[in-house]
Amino acid sequence: MNINVLSLFPTMFEGIFNQSIMKKAQEKNAVTLGVTDIRQFADNKRQVDDYPFGGGAGMVLKPEPIFNAVESLSQSKKSRIILMCPQGERFTQKKAEELAQEEELIFICGHYEGYDERIREHLVTDEISIGDFVLTGGELAAMTVIDSVVRLLPGVLGNADSPVQDSFSTGLLEHPHYTRPADFRGWTVPAVLTSGNHAKVDQWREEQALKRTLDRRPDLLEELQLTAEQQKILNGLKKQKR
Amino acid sequence: MNINVLSLFPTMFEGIFNQSIMKKAQEKNAVTLGVTDIRQFADNKRQVDDYPFGGGAGMVLKPEPIFNAVESLSQSKKSRIILMCPQGERFTQKKAEELAQEEELIFICGHYEGYDERIREHLVTDEISIGDFVLTGGELAAMTVIDSVVRLLPGVLGNADSPVQDSFSTGLLEHPHYTRPADFRGWTVPAVLTSGNHAKVDQWREEQALKRTLDRRPDLLEELQLTAEQQKILNGLKKQKR
Repeated sequence: MNINVLSLFPTMFEGIFNQSIMKKAQEKNAVTLGVTDIRQFADNKRQVDDYPFGGGAGMVLKPEPIFNAVESLSQSKKSRIILMCPQGERFTQKKAEELAQEEELIFICGHYEGYDERIREHLVTDEISIGDFVLTGGELAAMTVIDSVVRLLPGVLGNADSPVQDSFSTGLLEHPHYTRPADFRGWTVPAVLTSGNHAKVDQWREEQALKRTLDRRPDLLEELQLTAEQQKILNGLKKQKR
Repeated sequence: MNINVLSLFPTMFEGIFNQSIMKKAQEKNAVTLGVTDIRQFADNKRQVDDYPFGGGAGMVLKPEPIFNAVESLSQSKKSRIILMCPQGERFTQKKAEELAQEEELIFICGHYEGYDERIREHLVTDEISIGDFVLTGGELAAMTVIDSVVRLLPGVLGNADSPVQDSFSTGLLEHPHYTRPADFRGWTVPAVLTSGNHAKVDQWREEQALKRTLDRRPDLLEELQLTAEQQKILNGLKKQKR
């Protein structure tokens, strides 16, 4: 997969793209990661933004530099051109899985400014938001999306990197984890986990994952097809709550 | 405000904490930003994680290094100790505004690993998730939260940095923005924006913000107290949709 990011602050990406999974993914040739300064595609005056028509505070990113940059970078007509913005579709694990199937992703990151609407209407294929909060720019949001996509690419995650059990991949929140010491400041691990009885451990974990999801994110349960066993555990948990 | 981050990949933060608003905020003494390697607080073997009790793949962050690090860094008993994790409370602009009132925030970032449950139960004050997707670690999530909090601190955002109109701060999505050229590849800006009629511009923007919110995020409208004028516009828009 080829990933390019357009940004006014390209050096923000250095510490992120050169470490951990992102570094490994590039070494394994699973992905190429590039960052391009939008100013390279501006006119002589290096002007990338301008005042909004109709007045008002703040600046708006001009269409030409962004169109020129995307058209120069894109290697395929099937590229996904992704605008990071608070008005976009909410990013989810499902969207990460969808993007992980693509050959080329180009991310456009604004910074302080708004985007000229013509970028939205005539250039981008996707508008993505990572949540209902305001950031200084789209850079951190783009890095977040890229991280979640790159770790899904074939060969990127070794066994050593795999989380015990990813939240969201099963549809449930994770059960609690415990490691040594068995007694830390008087707080001990649940006896079942040191019992050696694997069936009971599995049962406890399933119950805990259901309990945590019920307590914290009951909305996730509505979207799931639970097994008969899970439904039985859940009914028991609901009774206890009453 | 003092912000400290505990991470196994402290250099990930360099490109982010030394630029743009984060840099300005530190220069203006609005915030101090520190990153601490969790390994500094591990035992001689620099061991920060261990196998999970009860078996299974993956590793679990041990309690001692995290407790020791937080207790060493924390300068106040009122510090907010924030665990970045997918099971946490969903981060929103309201939470950013809440955290911006605090004197000290300490962020704990896992990487690949799960957290020993005792960290959750006996150390942290908040568990925060930025969304329903899986990341390699909590670092990008912590940076995202920090960015959205720091930009709210008094004196950090100058007028030049202010977005035309932040999404979420009004409860509505932003109206479209346009800047020069008025005609780009045959795509022209709406005539009202170049009319010089400020009242009409304001009216158009209000209508567009409502329209965009209705189209993309009708859930936001339910949480708002609309003015009589807004409600009238909205009723008109709903009629058009039918």
